[in-house]
Amino acid sequence: MRLSKYYMPTLKEEPADADIASHKLMLRAGMMRALSSGVYSYFPLGYRVIRKVENIVREEMDKSGALEVLMPAMQNAEIWQESGRWEDFGPLMIKFEDRKKRQYCLGPTHEEVVADMIRDEIRSYKDLPYNLYQIQTKVRDEIRPRFGLLRAREFIMKDAYTLDTDYEGLDEQYQVMYDTYSNIFERCGLEARVVRADSGAMGGSSSHEFMVLADTGEDELAFCTSCDYAANVERAEAFIELDESGETIEADLEEVHTPGAKTIEDLVDMLELPASKMVKSMAYIADGEPVVALIRGDDQLNEIKLKNYLGAVELRPAHPEEFEDIFGSVAGFIGPVNLANDVKVIADRKIKELSNVVTGANKKDYHYVNVDIERDMNEIQDYLPLRKVIAGDKCPECHGELEIKSGIEVGHIFKLGTKYSESMNATYLDDNGREQPIVMGSYGIGITRTVAAAIEQNHDEKGIVWPVPIAPYQVIILPLGNSDDVNKAAENLYNDLNEAGIETMLDDRDERAGVKFNDAELIGIPLRVTIGSRSLKEDKFELQIRRSGEESMLDKDKAVDQIDELLSKIT
Amino acid sequence: MRLSKYYMPTLKEEPADADIASHKLMLRAGMMRALSSGVYSYFPLGYRVIRKVENIVREEMDKSGALEVLMPAMQNAEIWQESGRWEDFGPLMIKFEDRKKRQYCLGPTHEEVVADMIRDEIRSYKDLPYNLYQIQTKVRDEIRPRFGLLRAREFIMKDAYTLDTDYEGLDEQYQVMYDTYSNIFERCGLEARVVRADSGAMGGSSSHEFMVLADTGEDELAFCTSCDYAANVERAEAFIELDESGETIEADLEEVHTPGAKTIEDLVDMLELPASKMVKSMAYIADGEPVVALIRGDDQLNEIKLKNYLGAVELRPAHPEEFEDIFGSVAGFIGPVNLANDVKVIADRKIKELSNVVTGANKKDYHYVNVDIERDMNEIQDYLPLRKVIAGDKCPECHGELEIKSGIEVGHIFKLGTKYSESMNATYLDDNGREQPIVMGSYGIGITRTVAAAIEQNHDEKGIVWPVPIAPYQVIILPLGNSDDVNKAAENLYNDLNEAGIETMLDDRDERAGVKFNDAELIGIPLRVTIGSRSLKEDKFELQIRRSGEESMLDKDKAVDQIDELLSKIT
Repeated sequence: MRLSKYYMPTLKEEPADADIASHKLMLRAGMMRALSSGVYSYFPLGYRVIRKVENIVREEMDKSGALEVLMPAMQNAEIWQESGRWEDFGPLMIKFEDRKKRQYCLGPTHEEVVADMIRDEIRSYKDLPYNLYQIQTKVRDEIRPRFGLLRAREFIMKDAYTLDTDYEGLDEQYQVMYDTYSNIFERCGLEARVVRADSGAMGGSSSHEFMVLADTGEDELAFCTSCDYAANVERAEAFIELDESGETIEADLEEVHTPGAKTIEDLVDMLELPASKMVKSMAYIADGEPVVALIRGDDQLNEIKLKNYLGAVELRPAHPEEFEDIFGSVAGFIGPVNLANDVKVIADRKIKELSNVVTGANKKDYHYVNVDIERDMNEIQDYLPLRKVIAGDKCPECHGELEIKSGIEVGHIFKLGTKYSESMNATYLDDNGREQPIVMGSYGIGITRTVAAAIEQNHDEKGIVWPVPIAPYQVIILPLGNSDDVNKAAENLYNDLNEAGIETMLDDRDERAGVKFNDAELIGIPLRVTIGSRSLKEDKFELQIRRSGEESMLDKDKAVDQIDELLSKIT
Repeated sequence: MRLSKYYMPTLKEEPADADIASHKLMLRAGMMRALSSGVYSYFPLGYRVIRKVENIVREEMDKSGALEVLMPAMQNAEIWQESGRWEDFGPLMIKFEDRKKRQYCLGPTHEEVVADMIRDEIRSYKDLPYNLYQIQTKVRDEIRPRFGLLRAREFIMKDAYTLDTDYEGLDEQYQVMYDTYSNIFERCGLEARVVRADSGAMGGSSSHEFMVLADTGEDELAFCTSCDYAANVERAEAFIELDESGETIEADLEEVHTPGAKTIEDLVDMLELPASKMVKSMAYIADGEPVVALIRGDDQLNEIKLKNYLGAVELRPAHPEEFEDIFGSVAGFIGPVNLANDVKVIADRKIKELSNVVTGANKKDYHYVNVDIERDMNEIQDYLPLRKVIAGDKCPECHGELEIKSGIEVGHIFKLGTKYSESMNATYLDDNGREQPIVMGSYGIGITRTVAAAIEQNHDEKGIVWPVPIAPYQVIILPLGNSDDVNKAAENLYNDLNEAGIETMLDDRDERAGVKFNDAELIGIPLRVTIGSRSLKEDKFELQIRRSGEESMLDKDKAVDQIDELLSKIT
């Protein structure tokens, strides 16, 4: 591709409305522009990278035996009403009416369509298994679109759906997808990790996330430094050895005046006690019911775990006025002793070993000290692992040390089971002629998200550093000065490289050397060949590897072979 | 691909809700299913053909120098309001609100997005020209979705947009697209023709349609049998030699009683005169104004020409009550003599040579005879070519004979000019530093429509007959009987063909020979290889060419080469 004819409007300045590296760099490199909030036009350079990722995904999916289909973006309300998700999806789902006033949505996912599409076609256990996938533009109306392609409203996704007669079949296909996804991200040249995940609104029994590691990642991941254990912090657990033998110093429950001390930090200062001797009581409304979660003063609550334990659809912190009306308490001074009777109390497991702790007294500006769990508290419904794991915690499997890294979710696989096939009556006849629900799995990769994650993981202060497999072009040639010899040598090398199947850009623009160098670094092409009069006299070209900055000389007559060899070595 | 693992639910029965061949056959061949009216899921076989067409389109577009982009499906109302098309598109455009109550549409086309996308980036004449294209799913809410992929609501389209400094540049790029489109349909193996077309709602000065010829085509096309002239009947003209010297037999205008004679046919019977001696008067409302069009009794009016002449946005036949209220007449008996004064009257050119004709008398059950155009009629605003051309008319360019064929529009190219760049302020600075509007062109190919048109042109009573270049697979192997030798030979041939890069299906299903033969014919794979015990004993396979039905024998050891050679010869 000749840059003089390429539509690649690069920007020298940092765009004001972009917060993170991938967003800034995709705008600066002329890869895309926003049409509206979270909705982007992909320009030639950007779309080329997207298609590279798509092709790797397609090849690996095909290799796994999955079959490519394309399902509608525009989906009628009826199938979503059947599954019960027409309301559940909330405002994330774009809804509209057609000219006959029938209701539709822009499908944010396709479980319902798959179930509908196959239920009239699949009759017998002999017709199964299948894995159907598509690569498609999807729309989800995010409440706060941001971070460019990491949280966009319109985006490209690969989604796949497996159909099996039983859970053994699902397990097998799930494992094939697990391996396929691992191959895909490896082939893209990305450092990715698989973690156990929460299956959230999708339902189902088991779920893994594929994460590209990057400091800017939205997700926190816990990895064991000794074994394979890896999980999203949302669901990670730590091994906790409880010391329940702790001698309790007999002391009476005492109310102390703690004016204005609404936080653990305030109390630590005021009472001169460590946070580990305090119990935080956190008030929530779970699907309309009041709940208090107890956690040690120096721990953080993991809301996802609480929500999952309660099986709640909606969990939110209580509003200030609800403390009085519902909990019989006061915001900032809530505690488990003498709470309103109908409030459910759940405690983190670590609470069990505590004695003589501080809690709120349910009265403005007062706390209790010398609280004894068993003696003083309301009935505790359950002790659960509710705290968020932190770096240094012990691995739940091998008791090794956990570390926490940031990652960007690029893939997610789910064992759905029969949630959709039962509600939508997608069944088959087993070998006894009995009707059985089809067992489903669902598997997603964010294609445009993967491109952004690749940049988050691979960039420096000068711009993008593409991994070779997804680089839009592998080589960029910069002819410097405007001599005929230089231009001719550049032209020849450009033709020779393209002929050898090496995707090459030629910066034939009438621009200063500085502009060409800056743009080449910004757009992150793995190898840069500079052709100038001086070295050309000695039949040499200058080569620089974008990632390492390493420089070397190429021989004019062997340049294609030398570049070809180098490309097979670098990442 | 092994059919035992392929998702291809074929149907023996004709689907009840499909009217035309491509729709029926795509359903029967398991290529797709409807999710709702005019909205389809493409199954593996169908999507594979779609991608073949996409790839040919992409290769030829890239070769032409066009750059691939991807623009949003979800488009904010503001850009459509700027161009003035937010209302113009009417109910064909799906509109919706996001969670913040901002208005959007599902873009039925992308002129506005292109103009918006480039107006901040293109500064100087040096930045031009460009041709940006995309392959994308689009939604248009058709009033009556029908004919499967020929009139669907959700469909795949390739749309391209050229950007030039002037009309010479546009002419050049338009010609490149004209040639590229011709190549594309030729490479797809389709018999297609280019015709001059009406540019309709898109605006602009010039437009051509690319038509796949097929008896079931929705469009009528006029072709000259002697020269290159070809045009959609909507805009085709014929050479008419007027005989204005015709001697008028002096006779007085006479009112005759014609009870119930509301049509030309009624009058022919009642008055025993030929239709060519009658003038049909057709009452329309054009943007609220009454208009009468006069046409010879044996001709048909071409409404599109009338609408274009009037420059009307909406043209509709008058309602019965309007005949009295607005035209001063009666439905069925309207005529140009003594009409209400403010009614515009337009006549086809052929009216000019007529004398002593019959017209309506604007009075129930009465007509005039012996009408003399000049003497009796209201003022005629203009004489124009308003009649529809028919087979046997003379070519307007060479006076040769015109023939009429049916075709399906698969591509359409438009010279837009500055309609969008002016309204949306997409400008560049010329070499004198003056701001000028960018000159645009717009070019579309219906990808899914092309697949349907290919079937309309290529099928027989047994099923589809794919042209080789877009066939989902080139060869299908049918092992018959269930002997190990047959299965092994089939397996080996399958592997050898795939290795040789020949896309092959193996019908390894446990089905009767009849089912296998029927399905192979239904899905239209160009070459069928049958492997049975008898011929295998002589190291032979049976081969049949789907299109011609021609049969021959292949040598087991040379089969791959023989097939390869044949594929390069057949269409």
